[in-house]
Amino acid sequence: MTVIGLVGAGHMGSGLGWALREGGHDVVTSLAGRSQRTARLVAEAGLRPLPHLAGVLAEAEVILVVTPPGAALDAARDIAALAGPRTAGRLVVDMNAVAPETATAAADLVTAAGFGFVDGSISGPPPTVRPGARLYLSGPRAAEVAALRWTHARPVVVGDRVGAASAVKMSTASVYKGLMGLMTQAVRAAAAHDVLEPVMADLGEDFGTPYEMALAAAKAHRYVAEMREIARSQAAAGLTPSLFEAFAEVWTDVAGRPLAGGDPETVSREITARGVADGLDG
Amino acid sequence: MTVIGLVGAGHMGSGLGWALREGGHDVVTSLAGRSQRTARLVAEAGLRPLPHLAGVLAEAEVILVVTPPGAALDAARDIAALAGPRTAGRLVVDMNAVAPETATAAADLVTAAGFGFVDGSISGPPPTVRPGARLYLSGPRAAEVAALRWTHARPVVVGDRVGAASAVKMSTASVYKGLMGLMTQAVRAAAAHDVLEPVMADLGEDFGTPYEMALAAAKAHRYVAEMREIARSQAAAGLTPSLFEAFAEVWTDVAGRPLAGGDPETVSREITARGVADGLDG
Repeated sequence: MTVIGLVGAGHMGSGLGWALREGGHDVVTSLAGRSQRTARLVAEAGLRPLPHLAGVLAEAEVILVVTPPGAALDAARDIAALAGPRTAGRLVVDMNAVAPETATAAADLVTAAGFGFVDGSISGPPPTVRPGARLYLSGPRAAEVAALRWTHARPVVVGDRVGAASAVKMSTASVYKGLMGLMTQAVRAAAAHDVLEPVMADLGEDFGTPYEMALAAAKAHRYVAEMREIARSQAAAGLTPSLFEAFAEVWTDVAGRPLAGGDPETVSREITARGVADGLDG
Repeated sequence: MTVIGLVGAGHMGSGLGWALREGGHDVVTSLAGRSQRTARLVAEAGLRPLPHLAGVLAEAEVILVVTPPGAALDAARDIAALAGPRTAGRLVVDMNAVAPETATAAADLVTAAGFGFVDGSISGPPPTVRPGARLYLSGPRAAEVAALRWTHARPVVVGDRVGAASAVKMSTASVYKGLMGLMTQAVRAAAAHDVLEPVMADLGEDFGTPYEMALAAAKAHRYVAEMREIARSQAAAGLTPSLFEAFAEVWTDVAGRPLAGGDPETVSREITARGVADGLDG
């Protein structure tokens, strides 16, 4: 069965790796330069750690890249730099949350080095947290990635054009993460104006719970680059980039607050709206 | 029973007037300078039209102001200019969607002219469209307004401080109208990138239906000033005003598109996401 290489085995990456392991694939990843936390996530997901990226490329037939949005092009460059006769035609799948033009730039880098390329994106939480994530795939070889033995996640091919899978993610993430940004601002404004109780009673929990807001705060530093990718994607569609540039500003502010201090796994499910507001004040 | 004066008998204003008529109140409003559409809404709601604002102030013990956000201070000035010995102590209720500081400015204008003042705001659709709107009220005399015979809407007193009721609305509207802005941008971006179908399949209808987006487009020109009031309210809370200044830009753009051409009552419930995208393109 196809050996899978994973570049970026964080919260989402190790979750995807686990979903493929459960399907029977051997999943290899490099721990070079990665944290203790990543080493733990890799062990928990049953992935096979290797000392260097070169080793991953030597073994893997399909390489999934799941990095924070701001690191997508560096990852493509690192992979391209290690290309050789043995890696020709192997498939690099960019699963990052980036604008179509960023995906195209990543494609240019790795295809020039002899790799195949599939554009991909992930909508929904890591399969280790909750099953049901949608894996959007596009490009001439998208069907090869969809045909892997995925479990707890559903591949959806959205055509043979690189950029389409990324464009899907930019629109879905703009609503999901945008809404969390709206809720976070609304809670902070309500607390500052001393009307937090009636505001939370009016909004209910349909638009986001305090736990989800605290979880978003823990990921805020990673959201900043993704908001800029959405701004780029909306500008390419002829819309103003100001809206998601402003969301980048919102998450930059959140990332500097006490609530943003922990890892997503450590966020308490018992946190209240008041707890969120207090953790973002100071 | 208390005679109610209504300043601004549009979609929302006539709906509130109807809710008070249903409770048994006599509701008077001036049609001076108003459109045929407003005259029709007033007739349908069973309100008693008068030729001038002066006549409304001569009869009404409680004056509800329900104008677009950008017209709130002009309405307060018009009322203050018509003050006289007979209007001393009568109650002006600013129900507009404005920042707390705008509500305070309206209070200063009308109390200097001898009126009482209650800050108010409305969360939810007009009672004529769907029952259940929350009427937030604050200020020393808020209980008098809550005690009117409201039907199909629920008054909620949020303290005796002018500005509190407006602050509630700024946070709730930031989520409800912000989400509609996010959906509108997402649909436009998805259509431009030719991925509308998978994006709508991923988002579902929990975050807003095409009908709701088309309804928002029909109100877009009125949303612009409200977004600026929210920006002001968030800035007063120590947050960036950029986010809602950007939403003002989003709705300014929408207001200039073919989809924004009709009145809210004329929007088709059958419109599709493709119909929304097409109506916003051109």
